[in-house]
Amino acid sequence: MSADELPSSHFDELIGTEWIEDGPELARARIAVTDKLRQPLGLVHGGVLATLAESVCSRATYLAVAEEGNVAMGQSNATSFLRPMTEGHINAVARRRHGGRTTWIWDVEISDDEGRLCALVRTTVAVRPGHER
Amino acid sequence: MSADELPSSHFDELIGTEWIEDGPELARARIAVTDKLRQPLGLVHGGVLATLAESVCSRATYLAVAEEGNVAMGQSNATSFLRPMTEGHINAVARRRHGGRTTWIWDVEISDDEGRLCALVRTTVAVRPGHER
Amino acid sequence: MSADELPSSHFDELIGTEWIEDGPELARARIAVTDKLRQPLGLVHGGVLATLAESVCSRATYLAVAEEGNVAMGQSNATSFLRPMTEGHINAVARRRHGGRTTWIWDVEISDDEGRLCALVRTTVAVRPGHER
Amino acid sequence: MSADELPSSHFDELIGTEWIEDGPELARARIAVTDKLRQPLGLVHGGVLATLAESVCSRATYLAVAEEGNVAMGQSNATSFLRPMTEGHINAVARRRHGGRTTWIWDVEISDDEGRLCALVRTTVAVRPGHER
Repeated sequence: MSADELPSSHFDELIGTEWIEDGPELARARIAVTDKLRQPLGLVHGGVLATLAESVCSRATYLAVAEEGNVAMGQSNATSFLRPMTEGHINAVARRRHGGRTTWIWDVEISDDEGRLCALVRTTVAVRPGHER
Repeated sequence: MSADELPSSHFDELIGTEWIEDGPELARARIAVTDKLRQPLGLVHGGVLATLAESVCSRATYLAVAEEGNVAMGQSNATSFLRPMTEGHINAVARRRHGGRTTWIWDVEISDDEGRLCALVRTTVAVRPGHER
Repeated sequence: MSADELPSSHFDELIGTEWIEDGPELARARIAVTDKLRQPLGLVHGGVLATLAESVCSRATYLAVAEEGNVAMGQSNATSFLRPMTEGHINAVARRRHGGRTTWIWDVEISDDEGRLCALVRTTVAVRPGHER
Repeated sequence: MSADELPSSHFDELIGTEWIEDGPELARARIAVTDKLRQPLGLVHGGVLATLAESVCSRATYLAVAEEGNVAMGQSNATSFLRPMTEGHINAVARRRHGGRTTWIWDVEISDDEGRLCALVRTTVAVRPGHER
């Protein structure tokens, strides 16, 4: 399945996700920081970072397994917040660490425009036959 | 600090978070499912669930520790997705499991309006002196 | 399958695990603290706590799913260490939070003999057909 | 502090941990698989893998922060099991991803002697002043 055939993701549109790369082993996306993404202290809400990682991994897995009639759905998302983000872009690079028959595991690094690491996310994406969906 | 004194959270407003309870040991919030929260398959995006848990725990911790001049910031968020959500409300109940000097740990249950468990989240919230912020 | 039919677990014998309860929704086990379980500072090694939780959840899941010809194997183990342990027993109580077709999720509380919470563990146990083992 | 000055770790001796490298950014250790490390199905117990990662990260952090009068203690350990291990060595390579004032975060890869990835572990190690220990 190509990315063009994928239905649009309303929530990703809401937060401004820009898809950059959708490979089965390496995927990237980013979000420009805007005021609507902030929490009470003025920092980017941690949920935005968790969401970006979830989106990029689920999407890349989905695109890869759809060819065999499978679907992909997030099973777990573990985010460690290392450094507050306040401006510029939220840049996510996801590398696949395991591509099993029933689960894929990805490691995601989230960094700011100066290349400083701001969060680490490990996601597990479940792969299931499409008819079970 | 009372909840009224807390600056508004733009991201929580964007996704429609309703605060229900902000106690230091039990906190609750919910979000009404709307189309803007969906991912490509039409389900609620997993990042919304992670965000709701992050918000409710950070907020309750912040309100509790602010009295002593401290601030609270999310350190980690581990979400397990158990059941897709498609309609009604996303209901989060957070129970504090550890209230240490430097970290608070919360367990959050997210369920639908029929009371079915849809996600489990464990958050760690760091507590730091306000002047270090 | 009854617990008597299960092959012995060498590693659990090595660390002294005592099985107390093996139900499909609630399982319990404990370990008496001995010197061989300590790390350099004299505390019980964190790996002992993670191991105990892993054992009790995998075992209870295995016993429950074996009746249908399935096997169970640990998929993930997330342990948060709250309080050092130095003596008495390491007491684990595991409650099943999700009993799906392909994964079971358990929450484990580990406490000392005074009932103080020392660690929280969330485990995911994969359930697979026995012939795929 | 040099590794020679560190008190011996009884639990690591029990399971046969061999220390290979203890740097502040890269640390390595391994365990030879023996029968005492197996669970009922004959595989290496998942707790052994979690323990090895916990040991190597805590030790490397401790050695690094001791110079400034601090101590290090495990705060969380999240292990994903990818592939069963049955023989040879359990090889752990830990890379530091965050070296903060109060927490260090490490990513650990555990592989077999053929270089196949068998587990991924993310650990958080708390750093505290020695007098608070």
